[in-house]
Amino acid sequence: MSSSRLSMEGPASPAPAPGALPYYVAFSQLLGLTVVAMTGAWLGMYRGGIAWESALQFNVHPLCMVIGLVFLQGDALLVYRVFRNEAKRTTKVLHGLLHVFAFVIALVGLVAVFEHHRKKGYADLYSLHSWCGILVFALFFAQWLVGFSFFLFPGASFSLRSRYRPQHVFFGAAIFLLSVATALLGLKEALLFELGTKYSTFEPEGVLANVLGLLLAAFATVVLYILTRADWKRPLQAEEQALSMDFKTLTEGDSPSSQ
Amino acid sequence: MSSSRLSMEGPASPAPAPGALPYYVAFSQLLGLTVVAMTGAWLGMYRGGIAWESALQFNVHPLCMVIGLVFLQGDALLVYRVFRNEAKRTTKVLHGLLHVFAFVIALVGLVAVFEHHRKKGYADLYSLHSWCGILVFALFFAQWLVGFSFFLFPGASFSLRSRYRPQHVFFGAAIFLLSVATALLGLKEALLFELGTKYSTFEPEGVLANVLGLLLAAFATVVLYILTRADWKRPLQAEEQALSMDFKTLTEGDSPSSQ
Repeated sequence: MSSSRLSMEGPASPAPAPGALPYYVAFSQLLGLTVVAMTGAWLGMYRGGIAWESALQFNVHPLCMVIGLVFLQGDALLVYRVFRNEAKRTTKVLHGLLHVFAFVIALVGLVAVFEHHRKKGYADLYSLHSWCGILVFALFFAQWLVGFSFFLFPGASFSLRSRYRPQHVFFGAAIFLLSVATALLGLKEALLFELGTKYSTFEPEGVLANVLGLLLAAFATVVLYILTRADWKRPLQAEEQALSMDFKTLTEGDSPSSQ
Repeated sequence: MSSSRLSMEGPASPAPAPGALPYYVAFSQLLGLTVVAMTGAWLGMYRGGIAWESALQFNVHPLCMVIGLVFLQGDALLVYRVFRNEAKRTTKVLHGLLHVFAFVIALVGLVAVFEHHRKKGYADLYSLHSWCGILVFALFFAQWLVGFSFFLFPGASFSLRSRYRPQHVFFGAAIFLLSVATALLGLKEALLFELGTKYSTFEPEGVLANVLGLLLAAFATVVLYILTRADWKRPLQAEEQALSMDFKTLTEGDSPSSQ
C-alpha cells in the first residue's frame, strides 16, 4: 500500500502538518527521553545500578516500567499525529507494534519485581501502587486485544469500528494516564522505603526523584495535549475508506460513510 | 436571562440530553460522594477523627482536599454537560463559583497541613506530594484568573475567546487530573508513614485506603469520559451568540462566527 499524498476535496485533508505540531512532538520526545535517562541516573547513582541475578534485580522494575508503560506507550499514542500522511494501515501496525514492545518490556519489569519479592520473602500485591499496576496490565492487555480484533484482524464492520473508535481512543489515553499515576506512586514508595525520615531533609536523592516525578507528569501532559488538539487530528487520506473496509467489511456490505 | 429552549436550525442543537448521559452523571456523583464518605470513614475509623485545635488538625487536610480539589473540581467541570439548556452565562457563573468553593475549601486544607507541620516542627514542602500540590494550587489559581477575565469580566474579544477556549478546557482537565494524582500520592504517603511495614500484612486500614485510591481514579475516569464524549458536548443555544458577545466584544466588531 503506497502512502501517496492524494488530497481529497473538502476541508478534511490539509496535507501539511500544522505548524506548531513538530515542536510539541520534539518537546514530548525530549521530556520522554529525559525521564528515561533520569530514571537510569537515579538507579545508577543512588541504588547501585541494575542487574538481573542479584539484589539489584528490583531496579529492573522501575526502569522497564518507565521505558515500556510511560515512554513507549506515550509514543504509541502519538503515531497518528506524527505519521499524518502515511497509509492508515501502516500507522495502525506501528501503533499496535509499539504497544507490543511496551508490553514485553513491562512484562520483564513485572517479572523482576515478583522475583525480587520471592527471593526476599516480601508480600506481593498489598500496596495501592501494585493494585494500580495490575489494573493497568489487565486493561492494557484487554485494550490491545479488542483493538487488534476490531481494527486489524479479523476486523469489525465499518459501522462497529466507527462506534468503537472513540472508546478505544478514550481508554487508550486513560490507561496511559493511569500508568503514569502508578509510576508516581511507585516512585514515592521507593523513596519512602529507602529514605524514610531523611526524605524531609532534602537529600539529593529525594530532590532528584521529585524532579523526576514532575517530569513524568509533564510528559503525560504534553502527550495528552498533542492527542487532544482538535486541529492536530490526522487528516483523512484518499485511500482510507477502501483501507478501512478491507477484510470482511467489504463482504458485509456496510456503507462507507465518512467517519 | 431566561433559559428558553429555543432551537436553532442545523444539526448543532438537539434540545434533549443524550440518553445515556444522565446515568453517567449519576454514576460520577455516586463515585464522588463515596470517595468523600470513604475519606471521612478512613479518618474517623483509623485516624481518630477531625478537629482543628489538636493533633487531629492534620486530618482536616485530606478531607478538605478530597472535597475541594477532587469532588467539587470534578463537578465544576461537568456543569456544561449537566446544564445543557440553561443560559450559557448562568452555567459559566456556576462553573466559576464551584471553582471558588473548591479553592476556599482546599485553602483550609492547605492551612491545616502547614499549621500541623509548624506545631510538630516538621519540614515543609520536601515531598513529591507537596511539590505536586503546590503546582496544582498555582495552576488552579492562574487558570481561574485567566478564565474569569476572558469569559466573565472584563471579557475578551470573541475571536480571542474562541482561541483560548480549547486551551482552558484542556488545562482544566489536566489540573483536575493532577489534583487526583496528588491525592493518590498523599494517600500513599499517609499509609506508609503510619502503617510502615504493617501495610504489607493487609491491615484493614491499608485495604480500605487502597480501595479509596482506586475509587479516586475511577471518579477521575468517569468525569473525563463525560467531558470528552464528542456527542455529549453542550449544544449551542439560540441566545448564545449574543451572550458570547456581551461586554466589550460588541464594541470591537468581531464577527460572531459559530464556534
